[in-house]
Amino acid sequence: MIASNKVEGTAVYNHQGDKLGEVYNFMVGKRSGQVAYAVMSFGGFLGMGQKYHPLPWDVLTYDTGKKGYVVDADKERLMGAPSYAAGEEPFSQPGYGQQVRQYWSSVG
Amino acid sequence: MIASNKVEGTAVYNHQGDKLGEVYNFMVGKRSGQVAYAVMSFGGFLGMGQKYHPLPWDVLTYDTGKKGYVVDADKERLMGAPSYAAGEEPFSQPGYGQQVRQYWSSVG
Repeated sequence: MIASNKVEGTAVYNHQGDKLGEVYNFMVGKRSGQVAYAVMSFGGFLGMGQKYHPLPWDVLTYDTGKKGYVVDADKERLMGAPSYAAGEEPFSQPGYGQQVRQYWSSVG
Repeated sequence: MIASNKVEGTAVYNHQGDKLGEVYNFMVGKRSGQVAYAVMSFGGFLGMGQKYHPLPWDVLTYDTGKKGYVVDADKERLMGAPSYAAGEEPFSQPGYGQQVRQYWSSVG
């Protein structure tokens, strides 16, 4: 069991040890209570220019040594991933979740 | 889909319309990604004397009119429910989750 507000702000690394960003929040099915996506933020300064990348929850693994999540993606792979800017609410669009899952399911 | 940081801070009411508190955070299964409990905070001032009440996720329903969660419990029922103080981590104790679920499963 982990507390939602401890997940938020946790660093996200790749297997090469690069810090990619951190968990901004995560998306939960209202009725099911199932966490579907962890949303990673990276870049930006004081919230300006920040990009949000949703990752399917099962793409992330927690590394107790690093005290952060690890995702199997280099920076280029991440740059090409679905993302959105502050104020956008892409999950209200039908098909967005599927687009995210498809992108990440093809990561080795 | 709802964002974790929008759930946090959302008001919790009972069916009598009393505001019981608000959602402080919620507890997620690390591997499963399943939200098991929403933790409600109430009472206290500037965090002092605040009590945390974990509620099984499926006990809460969202009321779009009230813009908050509704739980079927009067204040007395809530006062008797499992709770803990700031700094305590009861979910690390085996059996705590079961205790919470049992208490709330007996609510009408």
